[in-house]
Amino acid sequence: MSDPTKVSDSGQTRERAPHIAYEPGVLRIVDQTKLPGELDVLSLTSAGEVASAIREMRVRGAPAIGIAGAYGLAIAALQSARKADSPDHFLGMLADAAQTLEAARPTAVNLAWAVHGLLNEAKRHVNDGVPPEAVAVQLQKEAKTLHADDIAACRRIGDAGAPLLPRGANVLTHCNTGDFATGGYGTALGVIRSAWRAGALRRVYVDETRPALQGARLTTYELDGDRIPYTLITDGMAGHFMRRGDIGAVIVGADRIAANGDTANKIGTYALAVLAREHDIPFYVAAPRSTFDPDAQTGDDIPIEERSAGEVRAVQGVPIAPADAPVANPAFDVTPARYITAFITDAGVLAPPFDAAIAALGKAGAAAPATAKT
Amino acid sequence: MSDPTKVSDSGQTRERAPHIAYEPGVLRIVDQTKLPGELDVLSLTSAGEVASAIREMRVRGAPAIGIAGAYGLAIAALQSARKADSPDHFLGMLADAAQTLEAARPTAVNLAWAVHGLLNEAKRHVNDGVPPEAVAVQLQKEAKTLHADDIAACRRIGDAGAPLLPRGANVLTHCNTGDFATGGYGTALGVIRSAWRAGALRRVYVDETRPALQGARLTTYELDGDRIPYTLITDGMAGHFMRRGDIGAVIVGADRIAANGDTANKIGTYALAVLAREHDIPFYVAAPRSTFDPDAQTGDDIPIEERSAGEVRAVQGVPIAPADAPVANPAFDVTPARYITAFITDAGVLAPPFDAAIAALGKAGAAAPATAKT
Repeated sequence: MSDPTKVSDSGQTRERAPHIAYEPGVLRIVDQTKLPGELDVLSLTSAGEVASAIREMRVRGAPAIGIAGAYGLAIAALQSARKADSPDHFLGMLADAAQTLEAARPTAVNLAWAVHGLLNEAKRHVNDGVPPEAVAVQLQKEAKTLHADDIAACRRIGDAGAPLLPRGANVLTHCNTGDFATGGYGTALGVIRSAWRAGALRRVYVDETRPALQGARLTTYELDGDRIPYTLITDGMAGHFMRRGDIGAVIVGADRIAANGDTANKIGTYALAVLAREHDIPFYVAAPRSTFDPDAQTGDDIPIEERSAGEVRAVQGVPIAPADAPVANPAFDVTPARYITAFITDAGVLAPPFDAAIAALGKAGAAAPATAKT
Repeated sequence: MSDPTKVSDSGQTRERAPHIAYEPGVLRIVDQTKLPGELDVLSLTSAGEVASAIREMRVRGAPAIGIAGAYGLAIAALQSARKADSPDHFLGMLADAAQTLEAARPTAVNLAWAVHGLLNEAKRHVNDGVPPEAVAVQLQKEAKTLHADDIAACRRIGDAGAPLLPRGANVLTHCNTGDFATGGYGTALGVIRSAWRAGALRRVYVDETRPALQGARLTTYELDGDRIPYTLITDGMAGHFMRRGDIGAVIVGADRIAANGDTANKIGTYALAVLAREHDIPFYVAAPRSTFDPDAQTGDDIPIEERSAGEVRAVQGVPIAPADAPVANPAFDVTPARYITAFITDAGVLAPPFDAAIAALGKAGAAAPATAKT
């Protein structure tokens, strides 16, 4: 293990700048495919550009693509209000933009939830006789509220989850679930941040998370910024460190959680859950309420996105396999609910049996999904 | 899944050229770090050069580094016989070369077994009054015999293991255990080859095997050459495909097997064993008798090599993490014997209880290790 006490060379905690910033008509995002080498900011000025950025994982993470999708629809609303010759035409253009955005990535429910929620808001306003220009203005506010609500939800997740982590333990996490995956602060990484601030955490084991390497590229960058000690490992090493007794808890995010608690998350999550069970290590899933999908009864109802062979055949553009190697590249897997110790949500911790706890969650008031308003 | 039926674009089975070739004083090896992009042959003309090539994984795989180590000592014997002013001086120089070679990689027992075996042969000949020049000639033959014996052992492993694989099943393997990891044919990949020839195999799932990507770079290359259908996956995907019922058996090689059956193999193997157990999938370890270490009572007695942080922080020289990211890089893990369904050896299949079967193996005659002759 190389210099395991080292956390950063700067001596200071890095300021966390927002990676998503919006002003009417322009969504600015940090291009996450370029990190940690380059900090490149993209200006997106149409729903199509936002959809492409989501598809290409320039912005990724279930809550973050929900927020980006909402802003994408807000941009479409401004443009459609100018071009439309009737309220119905306006809604039709908006529905097209929503479809483009929702189709960008199929597994994370937050994207469809956010975009569909805003579209329903627009329909409601139009039905109430509000003119398209005013509806567009309203959607700018709705998208900003959704963004702010997500940051607040992450803070609540962090505070709810931190006491669960065994005191002074090492925690293993997968993929990136921090600032870059959310409006800010993070889900699983939010819990890690809160636990670190409470002095309850020793070290984070970070799975590199092939193929897109969100752990190696993004989680390390965020932990460096917060001066939280970590050790980067390849995905195949997690079991070794569990067997050695080095891991006190596993905590991951989620892309979609079914009504029974089955959880879709970044490929590799399921293996961690099985390994955690084998070693009697608690396995936590941290996610806002927007990640729970009441329409999916079990994990079998969750579509699993298959991404391009190129992501497996190459790393950052460098070939690592024969050019025509047959490849499978499911971006997510499903962890059955029975492997999950608890869900950590913005409405508190859910313990088994999950079906009842999740059903009760859907009826909660404070941060109810926009779709619930329709 | 991209074009899963495609196996190669050449239409022909590629001829398997030997990746290790020896003529007195010169060991020629294919540089495995350059594959599959470049087929580069290195000429090594000293034990030090051979040790460096082993350390840098230009030649790797437990049986293959045993063979390379034996040839390295054979080169040292030729050179030392010319330089030494006494038989004791000759043996001293040879012992130094053996130490250099054995230190190159600590986990695979085959290297120490081969080098130590040849050194003991040399001592025996010198004690019998054979002059150093003649001893050196004898060691050339011994090294070639060891190489030929390994190929023959792999063929026996393949034939012994093929009937174990469920007929028409997909088989998952890890790392590279084929031509490149052995004298030729392979251990786990030898079983896969034999099963394919018997028409008993459907497809191979190939773990890419981070950090050094032996699966993505070498196993795919060999399977392409033999036109055996495969699907390359990242290491985190294995559990997903097991849960879907796509995997009928897991078969891996070994770097060192303790007297109780605990098995050190490429990092990530242990996770596969746990996942296989969880899904009631048989988990086989294929290895020649030279991989069994009677001096290791359990896995706790097996040293685990820690390799450089750079292997994790970068892929093929391209950075994928912050330059100073703290990293762990154990090259191997230990799979406890209880997860192993059977060992497939050149002396047949060993079923549990392994301790008795392994002890009996050590007493077998035909291909007894060179050390047993001393």
